[in-house]
Amino acid sequence: MDNDKPRLAIDMDEVLADTHYKFLTLFHRDFGIPMDLHQEPGKELHENLPEEINGQWELYVNEKGFFRDIPPMPYAIDTVKALSEKYNVYIVSAAMEFRNSLEDKFDWLGEYFPFIEWTNILFTGDKIISANILIDDRTRNLKNFNGRKLLFTSPHNLLFKEYERVNNWQEVAELLL
Amino acid sequence: MDNDKPRLAIDMDEVLADTHYKFLTLFHRDFGIPMDLHQEPGKELHENLPEEINGQWELYVNEKGFFRDIPPMPYAIDTVKALSEKYNVYIVSAAMEFRNSLEDKFDWLGEYFPFIEWTNILFTGDKIISANILIDDRTRNLKNFNGRKLLFTSPHNLLFKEYERVNNWQEVAELLL
Repeated sequence: MDNDKPRLAIDMDEVLADTHYKFLTLFHRDFGIPMDLHQEPGKELHENLPEEINGQWELYVNEKGFFRDIPPMPYAIDTVKALSEKYNVYIVSAAMEFRNSLEDKFDWLGEYFPFIEWTNILFTGDKIISANILIDDRTRNLKNFNGRKLLFTSPHNLLFKEYERVNNWQEVAELLL
Repeated sequence: MDNDKPRLAIDMDEVLADTHYKFLTLFHRDFGIPMDLHQEPGKELHENLPEEINGQWELYVNEKGFFRDIPPMPYAIDTVKALSEKYNVYIVSAAMEFRNSLEDKFDWLGEYFPFIEWTNILFTGDKIISANILIDDRTRNLKNFNGRKLLFTSPHNLLFKEYERVNNWQEVAELLL
């Protein structure tokens, strides 16, 4: 544990990983949903879909492999690498919700973020972590966090006004580097 | 997240799970090591074994299945169940060290501690958690923790004198219930 640097905790889905893109490829493949589906601000991705298919997201997300081939968010890798020089970076994902995501998420981090050591990875339920900064797209994770809260923009969180917001990794770089 | 109760974080190996017993059954099976091997205070289990076989522990621990059939510690289940009434209990295991332990540990908890929800399970590297109490057998996990630290006795930690110590789950029950 490197105690000299401030601790920066970073979420995975919709922050490091473009999980929406993966959902869209599956809904496109199976139901012909357009890849540029209009996403209504404040709604979960699946809430924009016809009722008869939108429950499908739960089947997708529980399948082995779902989390293994998600594209990283633009500029996430280079920015996190640069942040690692200045911060003690921890990756904190609520992976425990989906048992079959555990190995996939671990392997995904090994592929795209090999410079993050195992000591700096946390798979959680509640994010009861002690850190200086948390970047997350879910207000339920930021709510009880004691440090600086950065809400990473995603269509589902666009209606929240009470958080400091970052819209992409370039903005994170400008703010924290 | 139940915010009304104090948060009690509990380690897995050598605290909830009798991991030493599992190691001994494998060293016994493969090398005839006696199940009642004398364990020198302050030494890791494998440091009590002949040099030509003691590196084997790393192979065991990285095998799929190693963490799946470990016996729970005596009185751990009933005590944790009772503690759950009074505390918001989180299970916090440094599982990230062994990629192949993730699913096994998740399934093991589901079998023996089904009353612990996924929200209350954390698999970590460093235990950078925010809680009121942490029960752990590793001083490296207690060292940087900000709450009350309870060192759960294990042969390897017998020489540490500077921590509040609990020797078994009956003692935890007496202290915290």
